[in-house]
Amino acid sequence: MCPHRLVLEHLTSRWGVLVLIALLERPYRFSELRRAIGRVSEKMLTQTLQTLERDGLVHRDAKPVIPPRVDYSLTDLGREAAEQVRALARWTESRMERVEEARQRYDTRKGATGR
Amino acid sequence: MCPHRLVLEHLTSRWGVLVLIALLERPYRFSELRRAIGRVSEKMLTQTLQTLERDGLVHRDAKPVIPPRVDYSLTDLGREAAEQVRALARWTESRMERVEEARQRYDTRKGATGR
Repeated sequence: MCPHRLVLEHLTSRWGVLVLIALLERPYRFSELRRAIGRVSEKMLTQTLQTLERDGLVHRDAKPVIPPRVDYSLTDLGREAAEQVRALARWTESRMERVEEARQRYDTRKGATGR
Repeated sequence: MCPHRLVLEHLTSRWGVLVLIALLERPYRFSELRRAIGRVSEKMLTQTLQTLERDGLVHRDAKPVIPPRVDYSLTDLGREAAEQVRALARWTESRMERVEEARQRYDTRKGATGR
């Protein structure tokens, strides 16, 4: 597999998409981000953030305070990626009616022919 | 999960991306498409094409000839999706140098602090 395909998979992974889109709004602390995304385990979110940080898309800022505070934000590179991912997500959302119609036609046809 | 997230996953799945980008060039027969994509099993390609057909993104044209001939092409909806997916793939490809630099910095930092 070409190396850039792996980065594309990070960008478009289930949690990757949601993290990037959330961080387009503003920086988030870990616990805030977890609440904003919902239904993501601590482990999966940590893993997703580490992957995106390693790819240079997310910046992790650990403040030397007590209690510890860690903020996540997009890098310039991450912002470019996130804007495209958000555009694709919005496009998909806006076309769901057509997708649903296509699925109904497909399922009816399959039901009729038993193919 | 919102229903459009599932469609987004179809569009950005490992084989979904490659199928959509290939079909932007021209229609393909199944066996041609399999050769063009490479390393995809017959089963996975069939499944990917069925999913994209059901979502209304790919058109399957089975010609009543002997031997049977099946052509796959993009629908108008599929073309819209494929163009965005290709743009994202190209963007990722064009930014690989920056991603690699970020990874080296990350790995050096991790090695140094043992975080």
